[in-house]
Parts: sequence; structure tokens; C-alpha cells
Amino acid sequence: MKITAPLTVDQLMRQFSNSGSFGAGRLATACDIYEKMLRDKECTVFLAVSGAIVPAGLRTLIADLIRKRFVDVLVCTGASMVHDAIEAVGSRHYKGSRVEDDRELYKYHIFRIYDVLVTEEAYVRLDYKLSEMYRQIADEHKGETLSSREFAWELGKRLEDKNSILRAAYEMNIPVFIPAVRDSEFGFIHWLHSSQKDIKNVLIVDAFKEVPEICGICSKSPKNGMIVLGGGVPRNSVQSAALASKKGLDYAVVVTMDRPETGGLSGSTLKETVSWGKVKGEADDVMVIGDIMVVFPLMAASVMERLGSDFKRNKTSLTEGKHA
Amino acid sequence: MKITAPLTVDQLMRQFSNSGSFGAGRLATACDIYEKMLRDKECTVFLAVSGAIVPAGLRTLIADLIRKRFVDVLVCTGASMVHDAIEAVGSRHYKGSRVEDDRELYKYHIFRIYDVLVTEEAYVRLDYKLSEMYRQIADEHKGETLSSREFAWELGKRLEDKNSILRAAYEMNIPVFIPAVRDSEFGFIHWLHSSQKDIKNVLIVDAFKEVPEICGICSKSPKNGMIVLGGGVPRNSVQSAALASKKGLDYAVVVTMDRPETGGLSGSTLKETVSWGKVKGEADDVMVIGDIMVVFPLMAASVMERLGSDFKRNKTSLTEGKHA
Amino acid sequence: MKITAPLTVDQLMRQFSNSGSFGAGRLATACDIYEKMLRDKECTVFLAVSGAIVPAGLRTLIADLIRKRFVDVLVCTGASMVHDAIEAVGSRHYKGSRVEDDRELYKYHIFRIYDVLVTEEAYVRLDYKLSEMYRQIADEHKGETLSSREFAWELGKRLEDKNSILRAAYEMNIPVFIPAVRDSEFGFIHWLHSSQKDIKNVLIVDAFKEVPEICGICSKSPKNGMIVLGGGVPRNSVQSAALASKKGLDYAVVVTMDRPETGGLSGSTLKETVSWGKVKGEADDVMVIGDIMVVFPLMAASVMERLGSDFKRNKTSLTEGKHA
Amino acid sequence: MKITAPLTVDQLMRQFSNSGSFGAGRLATACDIYEKMLRDKECTVFLAVSGAIVPAGLRTLIADLIRKRFVDVLVCTGASMVHDAIEAVGSRHYKGSRVEDDRELYKYHIFRIYDVLVTEEAYVRLDYKLSEMYRQIADEHKGETLSSREFAWELGKRLEDKNSILRAAYEMNIPVFIPAVRDSEFGFIHWLHSSQKDIKNVLIVDAFKEVPEICGICSKSPKNGMIVLGGGVPRNSVQSAALASKKGLDYAVVVTMDRPETGGLSGSTLKETVSWGKVKGEADDVMVIGDIMVVFPLMAASVMERLGSDFKRNKTSLTEGKHA
Repeated sequence: MKITAPLTVDQLMRQFSNSGSFGAGRLATACDIYEKMLRDKECTVFLAVSGAIVPAGLRTLIADLIRKRFVDVLVCTGASMVHDAIEAVGSRHYKGSRVEDDRELYKYHIFRIYDVLVTEEAYVRLDYKLSEMYRQIADEHKGETLSSREFAWELGKRLEDKNSILRAAYEMNIPVFIPAVRDSEFGFIHWLHSSQKDIKNVLIVDAFKEVPEICGICSKSPKNGMIVLGGGVPRNSVQSAALASKKGLDYAVVVTMDRPETGGLSGSTLKETVSWGKVKGEADDVMVIGDIMVVFPLMAASVMERLGSDFKRNKTSLTEGKHA
Repeated sequence: MKITAPLTVDQLMRQFSNSGSFGAGRLATACDIYEKMLRDKECTVFLAVSGAIVPAGLRTLIADLIRKRFVDVLVCTGASMVHDAIEAVGSRHYKGSRVEDDRELYKYHIFRIYDVLVTEEAYVRLDYKLSEMYRQIADEHKGETLSSREFAWELGKRLEDKNSILRAAYEMNIPVFIPAVRDSEFGFIHWLHSSQKDIKNVLIVDAFKEVPEICGICSKSPKNGMIVLGGGVPRNSVQSAALASKKGLDYAVVVTMDRPETGGLSGSTLKETVSWGKVKGEADDVMVIGDIMVVFPLMAASVMERLGSDFKRNKTSLTEGKHA
Repeated sequence: MKITAPLTVDQLMRQFSNSGSFGAGRLATACDIYEKMLRDKECTVFLAVSGAIVPAGLRTLIADLIRKRFVDVLVCTGASMVHDAIEAVGSRHYKGSRVEDDRELYKYHIFRIYDVLVTEEAYVRLDYKLSEMYRQIADEHKGETLSSREFAWELGKRLEDKNSILRAAYEMNIPVFIPAVRDSEFGFIHWLHSSQKDIKNVLIVDAFKEVPEICGICSKSPKNGMIVLGGGVPRNSVQSAALASKKGLDYAVVVTMDRPETGGLSGSTLKETVSWGKVKGEADDVMVIGDIMVVFPLMAASVMERLGSDFKRNKTSLTEGKHA
Repeated sequence: MKITAPLTVDQLMRQFSNSGSFGAGRLATACDIYEKMLRDKECTVFLAVSGAIVPAGLRTLIADLIRKRFVDVLVCTGASMVHDAIEAVGSRHYKGSRVEDDRELYKYHIFRIYDVLVTEEAYVRLDYKLSEMYRQIADEHKGETLSSREFAWELGKRLEDKNSILRAAYEMNIPVFIPAVRDSEFGFIHWLHSSQKDIKNVLIVDAFKEVPEICGICSKSPKNGMIVLGGGVPRNSVQSAALASKKGLDYAVVVTMDRPETGGLSGSTLKETVSWGKVKGEADDVMVIGDIMVVFPLMAASVMERLGSDFKRNKTSLTEGKHA
């Protein structure tokens, strides 16, 4: 590996590709696979995200990738979209120091996410604004149930921040699935919403309604690829859709720090998924063991550089507005 | 640490407590906290479980703990209850070797979970039996929505295996929350169920309906404690309930191999939760960094030994049948 | 897995063996292999130890295993034997709390090893006593160089604490190799020793002298087995001896939390060592991913229980006093 | 974080610095600290390296950093310098695939280091060439003992490959300490060397001789900083030198995947070192949790870009040839 300066991110990645092994080699392979997915006109790109990516600073990047259509389907935790909405309604996450005293923070109504801080007030504002949106959405649907994808689409429609992931997905007609939507402030806000005295219609999200939606996307697409940041429910949901639709993934990149030996899904090997038919035996796949906040920006910058500014992915919409 | 033989599990734990540091000291503290939770008549014990605990062999242990009322509320992934149901309808998970070729397994319709194997046929049987149950449940409820807790209760009512976790919970009136219920074979079975031509009523699980149910349990209980095996959505759901009910946990034990530095929830420190008010600043808490399949049986055996066979936890039921 | 109480450690291990997978299964296998090594009259058992096992409380256990001849050769870091000597000359390691302020500790001359504390005074006492021993040893050897094994033997001869690992090894004629002996307080003490004005003979430890000694032990033994706690130089030294002596290990148990993906030796798989001939392709081997302070006492208690108090390993001495 | 393309490595690092948290924020801080160390004319930069960095492709980078005087002192494992010497005498490490069968590799005399392969023949050639060098060195020194630093210097003098780390260090008069020199092929070669029948002088490396050498460097330098890649003996040796010389480190960057909870040195926190006085309470320090093969090239490229091609560190030599 020969390092000179200045070096662009992709030039460094080429060094990793030529002479780097262990993690460096795997990271270079991950970039190759992401590039290949994007150049493959038949491939639908699923991005499965867990972890506090918005507080950590990846919000604009994810929104940009959606706007460039470098992502076709987003599957994520409720918390990520809560964090996105917090910023969309005008609050911020702050970089903190590592030496905060959590009891002091508690007294001052400041919440800590590792080295990021967010005020309780930001949550109060979110509760207020979103419970109002819930009411509107419920009134429009009058008892009709929504899938988590439709719920995300309705939120994106109402959030007016260009850097918002939900907004970008709404504008680009990119489906956003939130399989554990209840497990986040969205759940608490629903409790507030449904407890209001003067409520006419209660918003109902049908837990199972999204299943045929996501499976249908896999089914209709000639090829499917996934990029997993973290693991958990988002990874499992994409893999299950590939299985249920009997398609199997053609491309798979997993970036995680979890380890396989505990038998948990998040750290499980891609080799193992082959036995299930979730990932094809002949798929291009790789696991990168590293921090997603470092690894994913590297991948994005490298692949953008390779594809150039003129590159266009001409994909038709997978879903028609809120309808799958 | 003085090791002689034979030594009971709790005698070993006393050695860890007296002279062991690092992981041994933390494990001994975890046993002390679990014992304290069980002896504290005011405390409701939440067990939050992720990871493939049933394939790994902890099914009977969890069911036994429920029957002994060493657990008051179970919060888990859909996959765990799918694995439980697979065994309840007569299939098995098998110990495999580490050197399986996943492409070969795929050909023979055998699925691998790390070093455990399960046949595709087991899933087919499950699909068949459970889609029948879904139909019954839907017919009984005629359009009324269920929470994941009510759904779990309805399944437990219909599974006749004494060693089943769902059955034990049903019989003991222990609520089981499955916040990401759709992210598992339960979701695929729902798709089968709702696609049936002659279907009269479709089962509807309302994603948000369980939120006030779990928060209400925290709220009504003078004290709350949690034991987390793994992390993910189950851990987050319990912590969020403690926050939303403005109670804060009085006891917390987390057993995980995930690490804090990535900022993800599963590996996040209990210290951090204090800033949110999820865990109280003065709570008894500890994180044990280890494999749950080793650590939790040790904890259970040690605490059972301390409490003795005459120990009874006289707790009234938290929920009335399927009603919260 | 069926857990009742009271359960002996080995009864629990049998449960792990029958129905436990993932970490539980591997731990049960580790016990089986250690038992097999001890019952195999042809096998020499190498224990390779890194990490702060003495501060963590395993000192008496290791000394007891040496006295029971459950270990034939010890390979360890300098720091472990420094910690052993600190206790042998009358100082102690104390369990601390997790919330110490390291700047405060520094002011009060207290050193921290994770959650264990030791005073600077303990080191000063050690420096004083051991530099006196260095002088005696050098005077006896008058310019003749020692291997780290001979150095350890000379220390063990002079330490009069029954619970000392070095003392137990000396009394039992168990060779102790310290391949990185200089990387510890032993190195600093040597500096003090060699700087003394009135010094007649300076102690010389020949870095390479131990290589034929440890290789010779492998060579002469019909079979060789290793138990690795941690990794690092001790693991590498045993594996290298097995390679250099062209024997290959017949048994191998590695207990570690390090991971393979970084390419480092400590987390590297036993599979990989097969390509080198360090471990035989047909060896009994297993890696246990866990905290050695929990895992090793479990293994020791389980195997002692299996073998019973009458079990005797009649091994002749591998070395004659300080001579290899 | 706003990612556009093309982006230089340092431009990306500025994004990490401004808006990235968790791992991204720590990596940006690591670059800031390394830059600060290099701009600080009073600071001596120790690079402590463990892990298979040469097989992984970092050999040229390390040699280049030495030639640019971005490193003042190298402390490393024996294995790293063995790998360096293997390439210096004309052999190569090859990138392999992940699916090698180790028993097959063994048959074909090919050794595996994770995903890198090297032939047994490369080792045989090394043994032959280096045992000849050992003889020359021993003949020149005639019974006089060497420190590992002097041994490394003598090897560097005899290796004629410009890309060799040992050669670059020799030419630049950069001391290389190998505290566990015996724990590597260097140890086996010594055995070959000392077993030769016609040998006149045997090479003797005094395990302790380097201690005052490395402590003296710390002592004389107004400030000291360390960059640790991995951990193990190299990290401990630098920290111990800072302690023994009563200086304490002013700067510290640790890149590792090891974790603190086991109590081992490699994963231990820098906070803990403050209690010992190894790192100063007011030092600039950070731990980056990641793969060194990815993280260190990023740091090097970013810092080189910041300093520009005209930057010169005018440091006088720390050692005079082989003399400390």
C-alpha cells in the first residue's frame, strides 16, 4: 500500500483493493459490490439501517443518496426516523464530550446517545408537532389502516425540511419500511394521540400490512441487493423478504461490529444466509467489520467518485405514492 | 478464587463475588441483582430477549422461569416465538457441526442458525398450523384489532406443549410483548392467511396498541426491573416503557456481547440510560459482557439455589387474560 | 436445557453439552477436551496465559492446578508473574469500584487495572525485594546467562508464599516460560539492579535461550495440548514451539474475546493454525468466545468434578530443576 | 455530513470532524492528535505495532513514514519484522480467498494468515539467509550481548530492500525495539544458528538491555507521544517506558478492536493509564475502535495532506547508530 497526499477517497480505496488485506480488502470489496449494484440496471437496492445514524451525522448523506437514487428502498428502525423528524421540526443533536455525568444531564433534561446530546425539549416539540400530524393522517384515512410504509410516506409529506430522510423519500417516491415502528417515540406519540379527549379518528398502523408490500418489491425486481448498516430488525426484514419472495439476494454488503459466535442475527455470517436461500450461493457478498459511521461515508464517497457526476440511474418508481 | 470439586453453581458464584474481578465480578453482581429483584415484593421483572435462544436450548429454561413466576413480563423478538411455536407443533432444532457447506444445506432444504439446524419442512408445518390458528383468532375477533400481546396470548391458548414459552405464559397469565412481531415467520404466515381466497375475517395486529399496555404495567408497579439478554428492540421497548411511564427502572441487568462505541442501542451503557430517566441514577445495575447461552443459565441456576425450592413469589396477575 | 437447583458446575456443563448450542456448546466441548488431555497419559499440557489474571483473582486457582499437576508447562506474560510476586512479597490487589477518577487515583499513588486497584507502594516494595534477589541470582551465576525459564525458577525458589504461582511451579518442577519477560516491572527492576553502584555481577537473561528448551519439551512428548487464556505472546510461543518441533498440537482450547477479522494472532482461528502445522488437522480443538475470568474457573471446576479427588496424573518431571 | 465526489481523504476527515460522532468523531480526533504530535518540535513519536501489518499491506507505508521521519521510534512484535525480512530477501505475501481448506494448504506447504498466504519456502529461505547474518553479527560482536534494538539495527544494515521497514529504520537511524524478539521465527533461526557445528560465536540478545535505552529516549525528550496499532507487548513497552522515565505521555492514539471489559492491556482504556502516570491527565488522547488496516492508512493520508509536501520535521537522531 503506497500512501501519498493528497489522495482522493477512491484512490485510497484502490490501494486497499490492490494490496490491502483483512479489513482493508473487505472494505474495497464492499465498494466494488455497491458500484456493481448501482450499475446493474436490473437491481433494486435495499438499504437496511439500524443504530443512531442521524445523531451521528449521516442524515444528510442518506437523504442525498435517496435523492440521487442510490437507494431504492429504505428499511430502518423507528428511532432513526424519530431522530430525522426531530431535526425536521427544527431541533438539533449536539456533539458532547465523553465525560458527561449522566445524573447531571438528567437534572438538566438533556439526553445522551454515546457522545451526542439532545434536549428533552426537542422531544416535547416533536410530540406536539407529530401528534397533530397523526390526527390529520387519521382524519384523512378514517379508520382505514396504514402500513409502516404508508405511515412514513404520510410523515414525509408533512415534513418540510429538504435534508430530511423522510422528506427525500417522499419526494423521490422511495418506500421507507419501519418494521418495528412502535418501538420508538412514534409509539409514545401514538399514546398521546389516542388519549386525546376530542379525538375523532385514531391512527391505526397494521403491523402485518407491509409484508406483502416489501415482498412484492423483491418479487417484481429481476435482481435484489442489500446494504446493511448495523443489523437487527432492518437486516432481518430485508433477508426475510428475499426468502418469502423466493428470489434470494444477488448482492449483499453488511457493515457491523457484532460478532457471529453468539448466534444472533446481527452478527451472523452471510454464508449462513445461503442455507436459507436469503442470499444466493453465487451472490457477490462481503461483511465489513467496522464502525458504520466511518465505513459507510467511505463507501459512499468512493462509489460516487467512481460513477462520476453524470451517472444516472433510471429506475421507475417501485410504488405509486402511498400505494404499494 | 479457590476452586474445589464438586462445587455447586452458586458456590462458584460466591467465589466470583468474593475474589473475582472483571467479568467474574460483574456476573456475581448480576446474580445479586436478580435475587434482589425477586425478593423485592414491589418489583415487576421484565425479561427482554433477543437472539436465537430457543434454537440454542434455552426454551425450557425460559418456560420454567415463567412457571415459577421468576419473570413477570416477557418482551421478545418475533423469531424467538416462531422458534418456540416450531417446537410446540412438533418439529425440532438440531445441533449441527461447524463445517456445514451452506450450499449443500440449501439443496437439502435445511436451514442453519450458526451451529443449529432446522428443516424447511418444520417451517412448512408451522405455516400450515398457524395460518389455521390465525383464521380462528380472526373469526373470534371479527375485525377487532389485537396488540402483539393479545396475539401472543391467543397463540399460547392454542399451543398444547407444556414446554412452550407461549403456553407457559398463557397459563401463568404472563404478558408477552412482541414489538416487531411482523419481522419473523409470523409476518409471512400472515401473508398466507390474508391471501386465502375463502377468508372471512383478516387478523389485524395494531402496531401501536401494546404501547399503553406495557407502559401501564410499569406505571402501576411500585418498582420495575429488567433483565436484558442480547439487546435490540426488546431492550429498547422496556427502557422506553420505563421512560414513558415516568418511572425509571430500579434494577437492570444487561447481558450482551455488543459494544458501546458504535453508538447502537444494544451495546449502549446503562450509565447512558440514566440521562434519559430510563434507569434511575441510584438503581442496582450491571452489564455482563458475555454469551447469553452461558451467562443466563449460570444466573438462573445460582439464583434458584439461593432462593431454595420453597421460595414463592406471590404476585397478582398483571393482566386479565387477553385484556391488559 | 433443564436448570434445577442446586446443580453442580459439571451437572450444568452436561446440560450445556446435551442441549446447549453457540457459546454453551463450545464451552462444554472445551471441558471435554481438557478432561481428555488430562486423561491422556502421553499428553503434555501447556497453559498459555495473558491478561491480568492475578489481579482478577485466578492466582490461587492457577497455583492449585500446578500443584495438582493439571498443568505441565506454563507460558505467560511478565506482568502476570509480576502480579504474582507482588502478592508473594506481601502486597494485595483490591477490588475497586467502576467510578474511580483516574486523576485522583494518580494523586494518591494508586494504580488501576480495570476494576482492580493496587498501590504504588506495592511496586516499590517489589522493586526493593526483587532487586535484592536479582543480585543474589547474578552472584550465583557469575556472568552465566539464564533463560526466562531459569529466571522464573530462581524467583520461585526465593518466594515463600504457598499460593504463589512461581513458588508452586518451583516446588512442582513445572517450567514457566516468560517470553517477553522484559516487558513488565521485571524490566524496570533490572534497570535498578544494573544501575547499582556496588554491583559485582549483572543478571543476564538471554532472550533466545529458552527456544530450544520449550521446543525440546514438545519434541520429547508423544502428544501436546494447549489451553490458551487470552492470546498474545504466550499463545504464539506455544504454537511456534509446536511448529518448530514438527509435532503439531493434538489438543487445543482457546478462550478469548479477540476477534479473527483483524488478522491478529490473538483472535485468529484454530483452523488457520492447521495450515502451518501448529495444530494438527485431526486435533480436538475449540475456541470459546468469552471472559477468561468466568470461563476458566467453570472449566476447572467442571473437569475437577469429573476426574474426582482420587485422580492422579503420574507425569515425570519435564525439566530437572533449573536445567532444561 | 455532506459527501460529494471527488473528495480527498482529508476533506472527508474534516466532515468527520465537523459533524461526525461515534467512530467518525474519534477518528478525526486521532488525525488531529497525530498532526499536533508532528508539528510539536519537542515531541518524540513512538509507533507501537502489533498484528500482521506487513502481510496486510502496510509495509511500504510504515517504511515511508520512517523515511519522512513521521515516526521517531518503532516498537513492534518479532513477527512483524520477520514478515518484513521475508519480503526483503525476495519472498512475498499473497492475497488469498476466504474459503481455503487449511488441511489442503498444509499439504501444499502454504501458510495462512487470515486471508493472506505465504509459502513455507519463503520461511526456509529466510532461515537460511538470516542464520548467515546471525553468524556475521555474532562474529563481529564476539560474545558482547546486544539489545533487541541493536539486533534490529544489525539486520537493517544487512537487508538491501528500500521498502524494508528494518532497512528504512537503519538508514534513518530510527530505533526499532522488539521486546518479545524471541517469540517469532527469529527465535527458531537462533536455534538453527546456535546448533551449527562449526559455530565460533553465538549471537546473544540480552532481554533486559533495551530497557534503559527506551527509557532514556523518553527521559531526554521534552514531550512524548505514542500511536498504538493493535496493543499487546508493543503498547505495554511504550507505556512502561513513559512510566519508568517518570515523564508520562503527552499524546496518545490507540487503534484497536480489543475491548476493555476483560481487563487485558490491549483493550484497556487510556483513562486507566492516567492512574499509573503512563499517560498524563491533561494529555491529548483518543481510542479508535476499528481495523488498523483501514484506520491507519486513513490517518496517514489525512495527516500527510494537512502537512503538505514541504513539511519537514527536523529532528536530531535519538541514537547514534547501534549505540543508544
